[in-house]
Amino acid sequence: MKIDGVAYRSVWVDLDDGWSVRIFDQTRLPWSVEILRLTNEGEVAHAIRSMQVRGAPLIGAVAAFGLALALRRDASDETLESVAAMLGATRPTAINLRWALARMLAELRPVPPARRAEAAYAAADAIAEDDVETCRAIGQHGLPLLQAIAARKPGKPINVLTHCNTGWIATVDYGTALSVIYQAHDAGLPVHVWVDETRPRNQGSALTAWELGKHGVPHTVIADNAGGHLMQHGEVDIVLVGTDRVTRQGDVANKIGTYLKALAAHDNKVPFWVALPHSTLDMSVRDGLREIPIEERAAEEVLTVTGRTEDGRVETVRTAAPGSAGANPAFDVTPARLVTGLITERGRCDASEAGLLKLYPEFAAGKDAA
Amino acid sequence: MKIDGVAYRSVWVDLDDGWSVRIFDQTRLPWSVEILRLTNEGEVAHAIRSMQVRGAPLIGAVAAFGLALALRRDASDETLESVAAMLGATRPTAINLRWALARMLAELRPVPPARRAEAAYAAADAIAEDDVETCRAIGQHGLPLLQAIAARKPGKPINVLTHCNTGWIATVDYGTALSVIYQAHDAGLPVHVWVDETRPRNQGSALTAWELGKHGVPHTVIADNAGGHLMQHGEVDIVLVGTDRVTRQGDVANKIGTYLKALAAHDNKVPFWVALPHSTLDMSVRDGLREIPIEERAAEEVLTVTGRTEDGRVETVRTAAPGSAGANPAFDVTPARLVTGLITERGRCDASEAGLLKLYPEFAAGKDAA
Repeated sequence: MKIDGVAYRSVWVDLDDGWSVRIFDQTRLPWSVEILRLTNEGEVAHAIRSMQVRGAPLIGAVAAFGLALALRRDASDETLESVAAMLGATRPTAINLRWALARMLAELRPVPPARRAEAAYAAADAIAEDDVETCRAIGQHGLPLLQAIAARKPGKPINVLTHCNTGWIATVDYGTALSVIYQAHDAGLPVHVWVDETRPRNQGSALTAWELGKHGVPHTVIADNAGGHLMQHGEVDIVLVGTDRVTRQGDVANKIGTYLKALAAHDNKVPFWVALPHSTLDMSVRDGLREIPIEERAAEEVLTVTGRTEDGRVETVRTAAPGSAGANPAFDVTPARLVTGLITERGRCDASEAGLLKLYPEFAAGKDAA
Repeated sequence: MKIDGVAYRSVWVDLDDGWSVRIFDQTRLPWSVEILRLTNEGEVAHAIRSMQVRGAPLIGAVAAFGLALALRRDASDETLESVAAMLGATRPTAINLRWALARMLAELRPVPPARRAEAAYAAADAIAEDDVETCRAIGQHGLPLLQAIAARKPGKPINVLTHCNTGWIATVDYGTALSVIYQAHDAGLPVHVWVDETRPRNQGSALTAWELGKHGVPHTVIADNAGGHLMQHGEVDIVLVGTDRVTRQGDVANKIGTYLKALAAHDNKVPFWVALPHSTLDMSVRDGLREIPIEERAAEEVLTVTGRTEDGRVETVRTAAPGSAGANPAFDVTPARLVTGLITERGRCDASEAGLLKLYPEFAAGKDAA
């Protein structure tokens, strides 16, 4: 996707040196567009933990490149295993991280150390390319949902509510839920997006609003509290969100607050769709509420806010009363019963084991994961 | 209630001059405790509109004193009517404002102009005293709910989730939902409060957390997004909120986001109670969703955040992407079906016409409002 007319991906190998890894520092967006250079696995782990890169699919791709960086220095079996384990522990909830590292390990274990670094770059690159094509296809499979709404209310805006950031900077390109929105907008549909602020880290007001603005998609930032009210008053035609892990029975882990929007959508008969690449499926667990670990992040993220002052300084301000403690669960789980359906690169399906197995028969009982 | 050991109310007549009206500038809390002096109805209207005073019961009391200030200058019928109309239009959703002004008008219209200013101060003072006693009684009637939870889980904390600020600074003293919490804490119950941040104006993290901290009540600030997740995991025993207007059928208008918490409470079988004084009842409307006007406030409140930097400066920072628009509905309506019950100064009741009429028989059909 483009920033001011220049095409970018959200992670790439530096064109000049041919080996270091480039990312946007997403903690600096939307105030400044800063490109970081990552040169070893420690910097990659820091980038993931500190959320310089975030978004489940992007985390997976960046971790894969992190492993390549490590193997460039030392291609031993020990390094391969220990760095994969270290990178896999950077964040607990998104399954894409584990998926990407498992795919890397499966490909690289049989490769002799002398050829491992090169193979690792190729494998990481394949993961990135896979993600790009996957996200493009997700957009295509979601498009009919918005076309159907447009057909029902000709000449009127299609109001989509979204939570967190599921755009091109949350993936390698295109995005997941936002891929649907971009492709609908590019196809000439009159899409308007209600952008949940997404406290505590404001991925909605900071990142999604920035992406949509750069692409020219009409949108309005709202407090996370407002979506239910808008649905009660017919101002939301569809909810489109992404996810960090979908279980075998269709439960959806996603950014904290998603569950509340799913409840409101259900109460107001607003369709609630979840967009995801295959790498977000975790067919090894069923009950999302019991089985998905939920990351607890630093309380400071809730007690403070970072933004830009009128004269252009980026400041972090404390909004909470001095001395008050905070708690910061970063994700919640939306039970499958509240999910209208899933949008994947292979098409749309019910949020259920039967629905998933129709699209992904390779996960049928008795078969190993693909 | 006390700030650092000194007892205050949230509105009072200046002890030295005997006529000007004193309030805390609540837009400055928790960063500094600043007391403002209001000397005319214009300053009062500004204080209400800019939310230097907020909280439905407090707005009513301050508006009553605003009318007294105006009549001190000019006690004519014209001033009485026009200033009441002007103050009544400062904010649309909270019914207490209209209730207080209607009560003032009913008392002052028959009074000859020469005695109106004095009568207005007495009437405003009576409204304030009524609110204090009412809020104290609300706390007493809510207390058994928390005692019952304590009995069920001896030795463990009673986890209450609350939204916005319903404390002593939202009323004249004690508060509504927080009055229950204060009285439970003072009675030795091990109350712990989950404090919703309450974007966009952060009345939770800024005001409720400040109040609870000053009173020594254990509490934890959370993002508005987190409550559903906490309820899913059994971390919330009861939700206690206030309200800006309750209809004849028990629908509850309250700070934006309340509806989402009510949905989550319902989905997780967590009791959801609403505390209110009689002045918050609007028996003239039934369907809250259709009949209660919802204030739309400035988008800037959503696009920016005010807080304190580490070195002590209070700054407003923009969190949203440059150029992105915002929308800011300030309240939502929770349908009566999601409300476990109401806590009033006369006791507890169902959120229904039948429930309300048991406590307030004077509102039975055919009778005028009290």
